[in-house]
Amino acid sequence: MSFMQKQLLDPNNVELGVLNPLNTGQGIRNHELSAALCSAINDWQIDKWTSKDRRLKASIVVGNEDGLSAAAEIRERAGDKNFVQVLLLSRNVEPLGQRRYWPIYQAAEEAGLPVGVHAFGFGGNPITPSGWPSYYIEEMVGHSQCQQSALASLVLEGVFERFPKLKMVMIEAGFGWTPSLAWRLDKVWHRLRSEVPHVKRPPSEYIREQVWWTTQPMEDPERREDLFDVIKWIGWDRLLFATDYPHWDYDDPSRVLPAGVSDANREAFYLGNARKLYGIAA
Amino acid sequence: MSFMQKQLLDPNNVELGVLNPLNTGQGIRNHELSAALCSAINDWQIDKWTSKDRRLKASIVVGNEDGLSAAAEIRERAGDKNFVQVLLLSRNVEPLGQRRYWPIYQAAEEAGLPVGVHAFGFGGNPITPSGWPSYYIEEMVGHSQCQQSALASLVLEGVFERFPKLKMVMIEAGFGWTPSLAWRLDKVWHRLRSEVPHVKRPPSEYIREQVWWTTQPMEDPERREDLFDVIKWIGWDRLLFATDYPHWDYDDPSRVLPAGVSDANREAFYLGNARKLYGIAA
Repeated sequence: MSFMQKQLLDPNNVELGVLNPLNTGQGIRNHELSAALCSAINDWQIDKWTSKDRRLKASIVVGNEDGLSAAAEIRERAGDKNFVQVLLLSRNVEPLGQRRYWPIYQAAEEAGLPVGVHAFGFGGNPITPSGWPSYYIEEMVGHSQCQQSALASLVLEGVFERFPKLKMVMIEAGFGWTPSLAWRLDKVWHRLRSEVPHVKRPPSEYIREQVWWTTQPMEDPERREDLFDVIKWIGWDRLLFATDYPHWDYDDPSRVLPAGVSDANREAFYLGNARKLYGIAA
Repeated sequence: MSFMQKQLLDPNNVELGVLNPLNTGQGIRNHELSAALCSAINDWQIDKWTSKDRRLKASIVVGNEDGLSAAAEIRERAGDKNFVQVLLLSRNVEPLGQRRYWPIYQAAEEAGLPVGVHAFGFGGNPITPSGWPSYYIEEMVGHSQCQQSALASLVLEGVFERFPKLKMVMIEAGFGWTPSLAWRLDKVWHRLRSEVPHVKRPPSEYIREQVWWTTQPMEDPERREDLFDVIKWIGWDRLLFATDYPHWDYDDPSRVLPAGVSDANREAFYLGNARKLYGIAA
């Protein structure tokens, strides 16, 4: 803890940091084991982290392949101010919009907690529609395609329509892919909406109203100001700065934003949006 | 033929149309059957289409899961002016950059023929990294994620580096996803290039120099001029107008472009780029 405080929190003036524990037992097919490991990790986050530094908040990890026990874990933690979101992964046994996961969204909505979807996970499927790639770089870059299919599933299964107060956070898969995905979803929905009568509005509306994105890994265009074209669509109020600390591909807060960002947008990007979304007053 | 001429070619003043036959036997695991069906389809394209209307050009379909017989088919058709490209699909047994497909790229490069990669195909894998989705809309929108993983594979396996005169055309999966994919590939390549020493240059350079995109289905933003942000990165010289005729989601040439396109860009988009790429003089 003290090493992390000195290396990360203090020098960067971090006022709020949300923990996203991975390799927690999420996705294990033995659902009792998965639930027990996740619950233990939730206790550990309080014990070792959030109780020791008030700048830190925890994510409720859940054995997500069993929606009912996952919902029970969320209800047990609801109201505990150590936790500010529910954490899922993006590669699962089925696409994230499907019914097995609905109890999770219902419990999160009831608890007023956003649901974060972090890259990674493994549901038994190859990570591309043409099977396994050869290189780790393909795995890394592939997370953004995986989150695109996860978000499409959430929209088209009607998760946002059914849970209108649900807020989702797409974590560690960039955000630059969002406009073209939303444009395409809208176009096809306008023509084929009879297939998904439960999706009442154009997909882009749900995405704009109910989805946030963390920034790491920030897309890094050659002309850095090209990022503004993307953010214009997403909204400066929808991005949450993330470092991926302590990983090797950590984004340095002093370097991620191109020049030319207003003070208000800069403040929202680094802190204000997260305070609002997670309900943490200054 | 005469119905198509009256419905499509004549009223739209089409000067050049490239045929992309699907369901041809590509991807069948009986490689001899696959090769025989593809060869027959190639004969049929000449017999029934290109020989009857000089505005039409054909694509060489190949039994792509057997690189060697596919290369033989390309070499047999090379020099026949009825054919202007080789046609592959984007969902295959392995990601498209992998070695089993290299003989195809080598033969296409030698023949001076671009390789088109059309959406669809089936290599036995679920179409998302979380398995099968529920709706046809997810299948439709998912083609763009599939092409992203195909293009990442082509870059990272070094296909563009090994075949520097090879030109690829991404067909029927939109193009709005390209900038964010290229940004992300560049960022990860700069940090992890030791994993792919055969990729000598930033991925975006190969993509800019060796990749074209057809337009159907055109992304259709709410603010239609947002498309120009995307095209600024891709280049007006890299887009090839496509209709998807005779399918239900046909793009009408009179309506796909937002207002505010220069005459030169408009001409390139509808015809000039295709003439240059496929080597068809006016």
